[in-house]
Amino acid sequence: MLALAGFPLGLDFVFLDPSPDAPAGALGRHIVSSYDDRAALAALADVSDVITYEFENVPGDAAAFLARARPVWPPPAALAAAQDRLEEKRLFDRLGVPTAAFEAVDSADGARAAARRLAGPGVLKTRRLGYDGKGQVRVRTADEAAAAFAALGGRSCLLEPVVPFSREVSVIAARSESGDVVVYPLVENVHEDGILRRSRAPAPGSVQEQAAGRARSILDGLDYVGVLAIEFFEVDGTLLANEMAPRVHNSAHWTIEGAETSQFENHLRAVTGMPLGSPAARGVSVMLNLIGDLPDVAEALRIPGAHLHLYGKTPRPGRKVGHITLRADDPAQLDSAERRLAAVL
Amino acid sequence: MLALAGFPLGLDFVFLDPSPDAPAGALGRHIVSSYDDRAALAALADVSDVITYEFENVPGDAAAFLARARPVWPPPAALAAAQDRLEEKRLFDRLGVPTAAFEAVDSADGARAAARRLAGPGVLKTRRLGYDGKGQVRVRTADEAAAAFAALGGRSCLLEPVVPFSREVSVIAARSESGDVVVYPLVENVHEDGILRRSRAPAPGSVQEQAAGRARSILDGLDYVGVLAIEFFEVDGTLLANEMAPRVHNSAHWTIEGAETSQFENHLRAVTGMPLGSPAARGVSVMLNLIGDLPDVAEALRIPGAHLHLYGKTPRPGRKVGHITLRADDPAQLDSAERRLAAVL
Repeated sequence: MLALAGFPLGLDFVFLDPSPDAPAGALGRHIVSSYDDRAALAALADVSDVITYEFENVPGDAAAFLARARPVWPPPAALAAAQDRLEEKRLFDRLGVPTAAFEAVDSADGARAAARRLAGPGVLKTRRLGYDGKGQVRVRTADEAAAAFAALGGRSCLLEPVVPFSREVSVIAARSESGDVVVYPLVENVHEDGILRRSRAPAPGSVQEQAAGRARSILDGLDYVGVLAIEFFEVDGTLLANEMAPRVHNSAHWTIEGAETSQFENHLRAVTGMPLGSPAARGVSVMLNLIGDLPDVAEALRIPGAHLHLYGKTPRPGRKVGHITLRADDPAQLDSAERRLAAVL
Repeated sequence: MLALAGFPLGLDFVFLDPSPDAPAGALGRHIVSSYDDRAALAALADVSDVITYEFENVPGDAAAFLARARPVWPPPAALAAAQDRLEEKRLFDRLGVPTAAFEAVDSADGARAAARRLAGPGVLKTRRLGYDGKGQVRVRTADEAAAAFAALGGRSCLLEPVVPFSREVSVIAARSESGDVVVYPLVENVHEDGILRRSRAPAPGSVQEQAAGRARSILDGLDYVGVLAIEFFEVDGTLLANEMAPRVHNSAHWTIEGAETSQFENHLRAVTGMPLGSPAARGVSVMLNLIGDLPDVAEALRIPGAHLHLYGKTPRPGRKVGHITLRADDPAQLDSAERRLAAVL
């Protein structure tokens, strides 16, 4: 989706991806390589003017290696923070962005002690390599916390309370090389089994300014360039930052049709030194992920305002193989279209 | 632009283009071949499920050859009519679509006689291979008509009056395999030196239904599948068809941002048997062609609602190297953005 947004801007792409079947391979030269093959990374740097990533588990060492040769945006420091839930929460703290309480856990005994201090339902999360709900376990007691620590492989973790949120929202913002910031309308998200299912924007409610302020704090604090997504829990009208993604984000795929400038275009504008485009919504949109397999595509496309995005990935359980965005001029139209789509899906 | 619209629909592309530098080569396999190389055409058919074209000077023989192996849309009959101004006008006549008067001219004497009958300013046009204002000469007298016939190479021509139009408009419509038709909002066009400079949509005025009716007559009359563009002169509130293009059209590039479904997506939906998407406008748009060379792209992108489309072509005088679409929620905003863009261009 980045490349599709980039060709009209006059950009060419070279992709480094370990999978020979990576869909991006259809859109430019594809270097098939692990992320830590220095020769492949050097080859990528050699032909690139600027390097970005759209997967936050790119090793920090790879980003740092590339950054010695070429500009790498978003900054490797943002990537490093996003890869370690503890560092991420400490970053939020340092920049004045509220979060739920959290405590580092490095042993079974530590897990017990933290659970006792929490004295309520919690979630034990590995510090590293968690995504789509992986690497986290709900715990209610000290014994459960110790067992969860073992089940998660005895890796460094943090324990957080289960947050009694009224909803999950995300804010997507972009910052240019010159420090300009644009903030997209707030998105309301629904996850199931830890996987994002549905995003709707602009989200109703009054926390847009709060979200924008938190986004600016992080963007400016990291001297960030590119698109950043931050996921929040909304609790009694306050947004608690849960995690961030230093990349274009699934919860902003609706911006392709639903905003004046898509997140993909604004990410590319940012990392190539161009001015940012307007993030204003065009009507209201809802995005539904296609997970595991494909629906009857023709039926879906009969729905007014339905826009199909397939990723060229082989269907398999739990895999995001595409998404459909519904766009409408008003919420009632959108609700009606979503009911029709639900019947197709 | 077709391929960029097609990847999200799950489509793959193979391109046949005589130029090794064809921009589409970045987006799929590129068969570098003349349009009349039967082996290359057979190779294209061999790997294709359906074949389309976005250049109306593809030889009719090539289209007919391909159509024996695979579906070719729009139908080769539409291509043949569009390649011959006389056949095109006769088609319009047959389908009840009004045009300016026209007369076939096949000799210098015939040119003189036709000019005498016209008894006013006229345009002598070659029947074949005219585009962007090429292959036509204005004439006022019988002598001028004879000289123009010679200057145009003594080829078969037709003579038409100079039409005292109040404006030039185009209608873009799509027809699906099942015969459904969608019609985009009417577009108002400005040409200079025979080259399209500016398209604005939806065009003000009351001729939308007239245009839609004429488009339906031609689409149904040809059992057409795909996008069709028809250019009209508006004269005293009546639309006179000037020419048609059996393909996606420059005057509808604004639909990428300015319509619910772009002409490119609807063309692909049509030729691949999918249902058509809504052609409704989203706000108001104006498209300006970038001709000859590139403007200060960053300055252009600072303008609210500006969307850049570069084609990856080497700049040279008279060549369309890209376009910029301005989209706004209302005409006053759009006018303001266009004044800013005029200063940049």
